[in-house]
Amino acid sequence: MQQELNDFMDEQKIAIEQELHYRLTNLDIPERLKDSMLYSVEAGGKRLRPVLLLAAHRAYSHGSDAPFGPAIALEMVHTYSLIHDDLPAMDNDDVRRGQSTNHKKYDEATAILAGDALLTYSFEMIAGDPGLTDNQKASITTSFTQASGPKGMVAGQILDMKAEDREITLDELEHIHILKTGALLRFAVSTGAYLGGADSGQIRHLDTFAYYLGLIFQVQDDILDVTGEAEKLGKPVGSDAVNDKNTYPKILGLDGAIRKKFDYVKQAKEALNQAGAKSTYLSMLTDYFSTRDY
Amino acid sequence: MQQELNDFMDEQKIAIEQELHYRLTNLDIPERLKDSMLYSVEAGGKRLRPVLLLAAHRAYSHGSDAPFGPAIALEMVHTYSLIHDDLPAMDNDDVRRGQSTNHKKYDEATAILAGDALLTYSFEMIAGDPGLTDNQKASITTSFTQASGPKGMVAGQILDMKAEDREITLDELEHIHILKTGALLRFAVSTGAYLGGADSGQIRHLDTFAYYLGLIFQVQDDILDVTGEAEKLGKPVGSDAVNDKNTYPKILGLDGAIRKKFDYVKQAKEALNQAGAKSTYLSMLTDYFSTRDY
Repeated sequence: MQQELNDFMDEQKIAIEQELHYRLTNLDIPERLKDSMLYSVEAGGKRLRPVLLLAAHRAYSHGSDAPFGPAIALEMVHTYSLIHDDLPAMDNDDVRRGQSTNHKKYDEATAILAGDALLTYSFEMIAGDPGLTDNQKASITTSFTQASGPKGMVAGQILDMKAEDREITLDELEHIHILKTGALLRFAVSTGAYLGGADSGQIRHLDTFAYYLGLIFQVQDDILDVTGEAEKLGKPVGSDAVNDKNTYPKILGLDGAIRKKFDYVKQAKEALNQAGAKSTYLSMLTDYFSTRDY
Repeated sequence: MQQELNDFMDEQKIAIEQELHYRLTNLDIPERLKDSMLYSVEAGGKRLRPVLLLAAHRAYSHGSDAPFGPAIALEMVHTYSLIHDDLPAMDNDDVRRGQSTNHKKYDEATAILAGDALLTYSFEMIAGDPGLTDNQKASITTSFTQASGPKGMVAGQILDMKAEDREITLDELEHIHILKTGALLRFAVSTGAYLGGADSGQIRHLDTFAYYLGLIFQVQDDILDVTGEAEKLGKPVGSDAVNDKNTYPKILGLDGAIRKKFDYVKQAKEALNQAGAKSTYLSMLTDYFSTRDY
């Protein structure tokens, strides 16, 4: 089962990266802007969001083409959010995925503009996708703005900043993660399923599934910062505690965080069972999210 | 004629500002984010871009509803670009329109996120507009991303930055302005006319018109920095020369810049004459752009 998921993830990752490369290298724009956009988009990563979108599509589709337009739009928006998050005024990070952050490699102004450009261009990936009907384009664009904008990811970022210097409750922590990380994951799952032909009842269950999947992703991130191996993670462990960050282990203890994770996994799988998916990739991805070691 | 244009502009401005206020105050999002978005959106200004869109609509429409969705999307994107442009890493401006810039009033991180939020939310104003068909939504979203993203305004911003420390030619100066300012003005005119029912030949002439209108806007900006009154402009005059900025008067001399402006006005009106507009607002706006004293 693990091998089957690995093969699926590798295959999708390659296709996603080819699409991203093609869409960006063919842009007729100033070189410095293009270079800085490509630099961050091609910095690697697991491409979990577009993989999830394509897995959700596969779970319902009867042979319709894989929706690469929305999938790469999603990865572009994720990348823009990392570039802006890393800026000195935000998290002030110099290194991401083992290489200089965008503003260290180029400069702050270029990083701000590269993020703005990726965000804007992502909407063209949807509106200009010949594989989508006009009705699908309008529907997906609306849910995409809701997931990534002031009602979704951007709201999560501002709440996260405001929570930095104080103790927060588990409810508050979950609320921040559901917006900051969860909104894009929910968009991934519901959009893939919608384009694959899932009905509205199935999509409702999938949205519950993706809600918990986002929390699983985050609690495992926090757990790995305590128990992970720096070499595998590509970053030092224990930095959350040093920086006194609001994490699951801080609020619940390590054992409590692990118990919480298994509770989330149970809830995610219950919702998934009710959603009538044809394939098992979403179930396998749930296990992957909860057991990953990097 | 002047009074007729003033009445039209005032009337549209009031309607645009009501729409903007309504769309933003009704957002259920974190207060600090909403405040900072509203702060910059409601900082005033002439709302020239949405007014131009509505004027172009009026020039062809046979009574169809005014397209406020795309009009306010345009003003949101213009506002986001000002917020990000003012950041310390970009132009580092403390004051705009007589009040503190967004990052001085709030902080840099909030200003970055408020800009990101306005940009993202602007696409919802189009995709969620009940007055547009799905086909219109897809078409307008595509041209909006092209005007505001890496092929349009963002390209102009990066080229402008790169040109800061060297002498440039008139061709380069025009190229930067056409992207940085012109792209959104061309979107305004072509989108308004398209939704008003102009045919593709008319829209082609209007695009030429808007191309020159963008240059008229910019050359007048440069001229006012030499000949204007600080009180009316709400900012000191002569700052372009002090900062050794690339301007029309620097390249052509003041008289040369004024001659260039009249050349642009002639070209703009020729194109407009061929575009078969029903109303005279676009022609009156051309005179307004070229003679405004603030």
